[in-house]
Amino acid sequence: MYIWFNFLSSNFHPLLATETEGGSPSLILAGVLLSLVVIYFASKLGGEICVRINLPPVLGELVGGVVIGISAFGLLVFPESGSTASNSLIMSLLQLTSSLTPEAASSVFASQSEVISLLSELGVIILLFEIGLESDLKELIRVGPTAAVVAVVGVVAPFAAGTAGLVYLFHLPLVPAIFAGAALTATSIGITAKVLAELGQLSSKEGQIIIGAAVLDDVLGIIILAVVASLAKTGEIQISNVIYLIISAGVFLVGAILIGRLLTPYLVGLVNNMKTRGQLLITSLIFCFTLSYIANVIQLEAILGAFAAGLVLAETEKRQELEQQVIPVADIFVPIFFVSVGAKTDLSVLNPAIPSNREGLIIATFLIVVAILGKVITGFTVFGQPHINKLAIGVGMIPRGEVGLVFAGVGSASGALSEATDAAIIMMVIITTFVAPPMLRFVFKETVSSSDLPKNLKTEETVKQD
Amino acid sequence: MYIWFNFLSSNFHPLLATETEGGSPSLILAGVLLSLVVIYFASKLGGEICVRINLPPVLGELVGGVVIGISAFGLLVFPESGSTASNSLIMSLLQLTSSLTPEAASSVFASQSEVISLLSELGVIILLFEIGLESDLKELIRVGPTAAVVAVVGVVAPFAAGTAGLVYLFHLPLVPAIFAGAALTATSIGITAKVLAELGQLSSKEGQIIIGAAVLDDVLGIIILAVVASLAKTGEIQISNVIYLIISAGVFLVGAILIGRLLTPYLVGLVNNMKTRGQLLITSLIFCFTLSYIANVIQLEAILGAFAAGLVLAETEKRQELEQQVIPVADIFVPIFFVSVGAKTDLSVLNPAIPSNREGLIIATFLIVVAILGKVITGFTVFGQPHINKLAIGVGMIPRGEVGLVFAGVGSASGALSEATDAAIIMMVIITTFVAPPMLRFVFKETVSSSDLPKNLKTEETVKQD
Repeated sequence: MYIWFNFLSSNFHPLLATETEGGSPSLILAGVLLSLVVIYFASKLGGEICVRINLPPVLGELVGGVVIGISAFGLLVFPESGSTASNSLIMSLLQLTSSLTPEAASSVFASQSEVISLLSELGVIILLFEIGLESDLKELIRVGPTAAVVAVVGVVAPFAAGTAGLVYLFHLPLVPAIFAGAALTATSIGITAKVLAELGQLSSKEGQIIIGAAVLDDVLGIIILAVVASLAKTGEIQISNVIYLIISAGVFLVGAILIGRLLTPYLVGLVNNMKTRGQLLITSLIFCFTLSYIANVIQLEAILGAFAAGLVLAETEKRQELEQQVIPVADIFVPIFFVSVGAKTDLSVLNPAIPSNREGLIIATFLIVVAILGKVITGFTVFGQPHINKLAIGVGMIPRGEVGLVFAGVGSASGALSEATDAAIIMMVIITTFVAPPMLRFVFKETVSSSDLPKNLKTEETVKQD
Repeated sequence: MYIWFNFLSSNFHPLLATETEGGSPSLILAGVLLSLVVIYFASKLGGEICVRINLPPVLGELVGGVVIGISAFGLLVFPESGSTASNSLIMSLLQLTSSLTPEAASSVFASQSEVISLLSELGVIILLFEIGLESDLKELIRVGPTAAVVAVVGVVAPFAAGTAGLVYLFHLPLVPAIFAGAALTATSIGITAKVLAELGQLSSKEGQIIIGAAVLDDVLGIIILAVVASLAKTGEIQISNVIYLIISAGVFLVGAILIGRLLTPYLVGLVNNMKTRGQLLITSLIFCFTLSYIANVIQLEAILGAFAAGLVLAETEKRQELEQQVIPVADIFVPIFFVSVGAKTDLSVLNPAIPSNREGLIIATFLIVVAILGKVITGFTVFGQPHINKLAIGVGMIPRGEVGLVFAGVGSASGALSEATDAAIIMMVIITTFVAPPMLRFVFKETVSSSDLPKNLKTEETVKQD
């Protein structure tokens, strides 16, 4: 509120205006609105193009971000990557269309970037809440041992091979090597489910195992992220610290789920007795944000709390209704996250024409090979099921997504990752997501005869109902 | 994104941390999450209590805001009202639960307040978008002359009587008198529709006229707001300026609607061809935020653009689908606006025990009387309809809401309104909203026999379908 109220006060009370860190709040609002228009436009343009060439929309949002970001048009740039207001095309547009002076531009730029950043943080919180809501604890337990083996091998193999390879072959220090290795672990459940649905393989035995393993993967990936991020925070690896973090992540997740399950009957009863609009959504968000806050202040990640909240609420009778209401909220928040990630990616460090970049390219090639092989072998851990397409299971685990990008971002900002390694991780995410759909189509050819679903064009809504 | 990435960088790069205006971004996120939990809790508690005593929920959100705000518990306070981090209970909670130091508290407080303020600005933009979407240009034209007369009289009478009374009886300068007079004009369409539905009178002849007039009122109120706010910006009343603003507001609104209607067939066609999630909502928000941005930079209000966007999209075949998707988005953004307004209201200036406050109380009493009488007389402008309940029409126009509060906020921040006048306006909004439901029930007694709807407990969803 106060910004909006203050857009006038800056004209009347010069003192008040400087107290709010300079920059007319009306112009900050204008900057945020323009940024959101650009972000949404890039996300939809990228997403729609990708859908039409049979690639997941999320990849398009990422590439859309790259196009409007620091690597190309410079519409959406952030101060923390060294950009100033004069690098921001949005600030130039504001100066052109409004009363923004070059002097005020830097403080408006800082405030606008801060707001967009926090919106994108809320975006990743809502995303993990939605992923939690789409997951199913009971289902996970039922798919059971096979999926668990696939998931664990699919986490351990690329993590171990990636970390060891970076340390021994590329002589990276341990912390960045662990970061890059960890970024190789988590299969993107969203992308995988989408691709399987497009191939009509979501309800096949292979599809079920892949989905189960991808969900477990996601949980493991989040725990690893919390551990690795906290490691970066303390700047060193202490075994006692690792154990503390694994235990606190485990205790938090298990505790939140157990206590949450005790509380949900009362929450559902409360919601059923409420008579105002948005009773279910707001009550759920209070629960989600509270867990996110707790996870944040106990040195874990806010997203871990959001995921736990989603898992717990998925167990209630309100799941479907809540999922319906979270969809539009996720639709407006989540693209801000993906586009921002793309916008922050400086692809110029991968330009092979510059000799100093070759290190990054070599690392990227290594990571991509490990990322693909580390998941492909997981299919061959499936025993006692003679007619199963083992190759398809492994290939289905290839696409990386959200969590891998989060690793890259956290690692880059922590200073643990060099620009080259950071860009290599993002290249790995982009490439694995690109190659998985055609590879999956190829390896599923032998079993695709009895497919009960059309090959293309299933919408994400259909995926959810499956 | 960068805040989240940076929450680590502050430990590694002290320079980077100060560049982002101090304060660990992880703590800013924690502050925002805690603020949102408190805001949502207050809005739901207040809303649910009000529903149970047959008052509109929006009033509860407002009162909930007052309770957590500067007037009572001091959980949600804003720097612009003179509060510092040490006045904020949320900052104290953060210091208690996290690693926040008293030194860093002031910058975290400033950043967190800035983000919450911008979220509440987005809240009022989404609210006006939704109101526009629920309005119906064709219906408005059909209800026609009767509603128009009621609307115009209901705007002119309280505005003229209020402004003149404040100038001649209370010797206020012209600008604050115009501000306070303008705040008396706009009937709350949300509150009115809700109350009518609860009484089963939404589809009665009186109900139709009230709704039609309330919609027109809303449009007039927004134009008046734009004019008055821009007046406050230039600090003086220039007739040429007033004319320019009326014309630019009119041209913008009419132009946005006409050009918008030309564009919507292409927009709808585009949306129908899109295959990614959230295609309708995101495309509509791009349209809404673009118009809001234009309205903002041409010195009008962003909310005027949002309202125009809603009106235009209400004309398309996508209206119902879009309304469904906007509901959850409005549910999470709009309470931030109402609770913030309440939290900023310093009711202590109305404490009658302090002699210097009596001026504000007398002004409040005068405004309340003008607010009620100025709308009640509108019913008696209805001619040629012998069996109509004229008193009911006038009483139905009494509740003020969103727009009145916006006037109070803009006026207060511009320095045009004294604290006493500002508090008096907010008292007027609260009291008119409080007295309308019981008064409406009373005056509708004679016509209520053939009511086709249950008296209470209609949800807002039902209201919308009517």
